[in-house]
Amino acid sequence: MRVEIWSDIACPWCYVGKARFEKALEAFPHRDEVEVVHRSFELDPGRAKDDVQPVITMLTAKYGMSEAQAEAGEDSLGAQAAAEGLPYRTRGRDHGSTFDMHRLLHFARERGRQAELLDLLYRANFAEERSVYNDDERLVGLATAAGLDPHDARAVLADPEAYAEQVRADEREAAGLGATGVPFFVLDRKYGVSGAQPAEVFAQALDQAWGERAPLTLIDGDAETCGPDGCAVPQP
Amino acid sequence: MRVEIWSDIACPWCYVGKARFEKALEAFPHRDEVEVVHRSFELDPGRAKDDVQPVITMLTAKYGMSEAQAEAGEDSLGAQAAAEGLPYRTRGRDHGSTFDMHRLLHFARERGRQAELLDLLYRANFAEERSVYNDDERLVGLATAAGLDPHDARAVLADPEAYAEQVRADEREAAGLGATGVPFFVLDRKYGVSGAQPAEVFAQALDQAWGERAPLTLIDGDAETCGPDGCAVPQP
Repeated sequence: MRVEIWSDIACPWCYVGKARFEKALEAFPHRDEVEVVHRSFELDPGRAKDDVQPVITMLTAKYGMSEAQAEAGEDSLGAQAAAEGLPYRTRGRDHGSTFDMHRLLHFARERGRQAELLDLLYRANFAEERSVYNDDERLVGLATAAGLDPHDARAVLADPEAYAEQVRADEREAAGLGATGVPFFVLDRKYGVSGAQPAEVFAQALDQAWGERAPLTLIDGDAETCGPDGCAVPQP
Repeated sequence: MRVEIWSDIACPWCYVGKARFEKALEAFPHRDEVEVVHRSFELDPGRAKDDVQPVITMLTAKYGMSEAQAEAGEDSLGAQAAAEGLPYRTRGRDHGSTFDMHRLLHFARERGRQAELLDLLYRANFAEERSVYNDDERLVGLATAAGLDPHDARAVLADPEAYAEQVRADEREAAGLGATGVPFFVLDRKYGVSGAQPAEVFAQALDQAWGERAPLTLIDGDAETCGPDGCAVPQP
């Protein structure tokens, strides 16, 4: 079974929802047969790489909140994160473009290091003091910690088109599947789970998708195969 | 869309069927949205690594063919391969265990080099004079040509348990899906195509699977998400 998770590094509910999903997956009897794939979804796709500002400033400027409202929201998200055992820095976090992080995550997927890099990016963005935005060397450091080659990671970051099409393809696909927000979980392209649901909902979704795996529909009968008894060979 | 192909390096119909599938995929309008994954299926899973013999000898010993019958079969398979533009050495090929090649293919998948390695293994087995069986350095050479690190490839080959569980899991899954021979093609875990079908059948299968992608069933409504308009935040 395959679970694709559309999310953004800058999305607090993605950070929290991922932990809830993983709790359900950990308890799922067929967890070893579940492949998890990160898919890209930028909350703020138009933002320039060098347009970085504190989250609280962005919230007041973009959504017209008062500073007190923005801070209360961050405190509330921090409490939700804490309930899942996740560190969350409620003051002083930055907001910026995550496009390069998504490009790097696609590169990491090719090298079998996507899950490691995603965890490190979330932690860096939500819990660490140093900003992850507009700082290629910071990202190279995280990529290296995830097991990637620093020279390769630097080359990906230096070329703005590297893996860019994969990021955009994920975003088009999200739109096609009807996702307007993240996190968005897709199980075997059959079931969708929207948002940071409780672990119980993810557990139910895993059970349901697993239990309802339908037998394959065979197209056009059999043609020549090889099997334990040899290969079908047309006689001349 | 995802196409999983169960096959074995030692399987002539897999070699031919892959070329036919690729012809259909090349002409498929949504080919850039198709991910192709190799899955393991050993035709001769009980064979020891050092038990290598000429294909003709294996065919006469295992299936009781006469040498003339075995040679006629190879000629016939060679003609099918030639019709797809594939080189095929009808005399002097070896037969042996492909377990290590499947382990190496799983490692290559992690590193984004599976398609390259699979092509090289098929060519080496079916068209080149030097045997691919029971020769780790030969496999390291092919892995290197596929873009893998030779030291890493050697380490995988040296540890008989490395990626072994992934090979066995693929084989269990093939049995669960009802595949008794290969090649076996599975489209989005919904449609199956058995054998080296003509390209037209693969084209039809791709069209059908693409056209019948069903909308997702959403489980349990919406929960908190972040979107272009901000994050849902529970108010204290």
